[in-house]
Amino acid sequence: MITVAVDAGGADLGPAEVAAGAARAAALGIGVLLFGPREGIGAVPDGVEVVHAPISIAKASDPAFAVRSTPDASIVQAARAVAEGRAQALVSGGSTGSALAAGLFNIRRDRGIYRPALALPVPMPGAPPVLLLDVGANVTCRPEHLVQFAHMGSAFARAVMGIESPRVALLSNGEEPAKGTRELVSVHEQLAGVGGTGLRFVGNIEGTQVTDGAADVVVMDGFIGNITLKLIEGVSGRTLRAIRDVAMSSARAKLGGWLLAPAVRALRDEIDPERPGGAYMLGLRQLGVVAHGRFTRRGFARAIEVAAQGVEEDVIAKTRVALQAAGALRPPVDDGEETDDGASSEPTATVSSR
Amino acid sequence: MITVAVDAGGADLGPAEVAAGAARAAALGIGVLLFGPREGIGAVPDGVEVVHAPISIAKASDPAFAVRSTPDASIVQAARAVAEGRAQALVSGGSTGSALAAGLFNIRRDRGIYRPALALPVPMPGAPPVLLLDVGANVTCRPEHLVQFAHMGSAFARAVMGIESPRVALLSNGEEPAKGTRELVSVHEQLAGVGGTGLRFVGNIEGTQVTDGAADVVVMDGFIGNITLKLIEGVSGRTLRAIRDVAMSSARAKLGGWLLAPAVRALRDEIDPERPGGAYMLGLRQLGVVAHGRFTRRGFARAIEVAAQGVEEDVIAKTRVALQAAGALRPPVDDGEETDDGASSEPTATVSSR
Repeated sequence: MITVAVDAGGADLGPAEVAAGAARAAALGIGVLLFGPREGIGAVPDGVEVVHAPISIAKASDPAFAVRSTPDASIVQAARAVAEGRAQALVSGGSTGSALAAGLFNIRRDRGIYRPALALPVPMPGAPPVLLLDVGANVTCRPEHLVQFAHMGSAFARAVMGIESPRVALLSNGEEPAKGTRELVSVHEQLAGVGGTGLRFVGNIEGTQVTDGAADVVVMDGFIGNITLKLIEGVSGRTLRAIRDVAMSSARAKLGGWLLAPAVRALRDEIDPERPGGAYMLGLRQLGVVAHGRFTRRGFARAIEVAAQGVEEDVIAKTRVALQAAGALRPPVDDGEETDDGASSEPTATVSSR
Repeated sequence: MITVAVDAGGADLGPAEVAAGAARAAALGIGVLLFGPREGIGAVPDGVEVVHAPISIAKASDPAFAVRSTPDASIVQAARAVAEGRAQALVSGGSTGSALAAGLFNIRRDRGIYRPALALPVPMPGAPPVLLLDVGANVTCRPEHLVQFAHMGSAFARAVMGIESPRVALLSNGEEPAKGTRELVSVHEQLAGVGGTGLRFVGNIEGTQVTDGAADVVVMDGFIGNITLKLIEGVSGRTLRAIRDVAMSSARAKLGGWLLAPAVRALRDEIDPERPGGAYMLGLRQLGVVAHGRFTRRGFARAIEVAAQGVEEDVIAKTRVALQAAGALRPPVDDGEETDDGASSEPTATVSSR
């Protein structure tokens, strides 16, 4: 049985909501180790083991410092359970920053990985989801980081999303290879030269094309990824609200809106941010899933479920093999510190509430 | 009478479509100088003066070079007409890059301006438009450029959009002042310290807030601006298409969709990208408006109309006064080349088809 370590601290609706999600996941046959305040969790759901961890650092302004200085924090204990093999994946329901820091310091980066990335299969209205990465782990990225993200995203889309030959694109301000920042142009050059390594690079795409199914995997730095993700959420939400409002504008429109309501509800469910369960933390030695603090039990259940699926699909090993085959692993560093470099030894996440 | 110089070269639907838009604008009492191939334009519309300019550089891969080496190009002639006082504003229907280059080399930057910016009042479904800048003139920006864009956007929103005290925000990956790239944090610091200069800085906003009316003016670099604009277009379009599709999913939904259709059409018109007429080129000595090459006559007519309105509202002078009052003008450079600096003497636009 796959066991998932879940941090119940930091969810906006409180630990009991996470516990309710854990109960749903447990009912599917997934083992859950739940870290949080016993009194906040309340009655222990069947199939869930609760570890009393009353300290939450989800609101810490300096997540890296908080993780280092608070070994008892619920997210740190949960990450340690994964590092020590008591669980096979981590689910966090609090801040992205502390989940990343706890993952980096405890689960550690996988060999040859520059930086972990957050990958999210974003639901598209009336179309298959599109995997965006990085959606917030790294505010700034060097070209070699983005090149690696492309391979990580491709391996993930193949292993978890079932896409045989995922089309991988770079988000830019134009399709031509010379478009974008200097760094992006360099990434384009490097990816365009990887023929035969199993990566299907389709070049740059523009913002309009993200929603048009032009690519299965879209690569960007975490700053733009955060903005992109939130724009998609914001614009689709605002458009649906505007439709709802026009459906109140006349007697005729009201009747139309009432008749159309079930179909629109189905559409809204389809693009529900809780549906994907959260962003996958890729590049660590074990899998992590970062749920949104705003989620209800439904979202947390999904997060635990997709984490267990990722373990079952062996996404970490498949990503490693793909990176190896593509020659995209970070070269070993001579000083023996192969998992650390100056720039990334500290988690760079500054996204506390994705 | 206000006269607008219009480049008819480069529009996807051909010069005759631009001419038809020019005719509509002329019917509103706006003088139009139309630069393009006489045979492509066809019958000269009433109130429009055609200047035969058969050479278009809208498809040039290096717009700055094309502008310098092709003084007869339609966009260069149009820009020169503005520089020489034969017209008071420029409208381009071709590539953003060549419009910017032609503007920079002929109309020139206004005194104290680092970089011109493209500002677009983006229509929001069921809400007032939000002014985004820069939407594509500068792929990379230094902090002082973004600070100036904030003041330029604020002055514009006051002069043209009629917002008395526009709320100006920075687009970032979180609301806290420390969020974002190092450059953005510096911009935040500088803008937070401008109290009393007439700028109402409301801090950082996230992607979701752009559509939520959290700010009237949202500042970003041209790379992110291009992506943001195209995501908004793409996501709202895809959401409306998904609604249309669900309205075909059952007999009940079909009837609902039919009843709701007029209201949805009104909504679609509201967020029509042709409605704002194009992006305002701010920071030159005269106003420019960059229409989208894809526009129909309706969009070109709007572009000419909003250009004339901008002249009437004296947006250039008002921006100058606002920048002066805020102390946000670029300090004069000792070598007398006050309109040039190393980084920006060449147009940096790499957006050829916004």
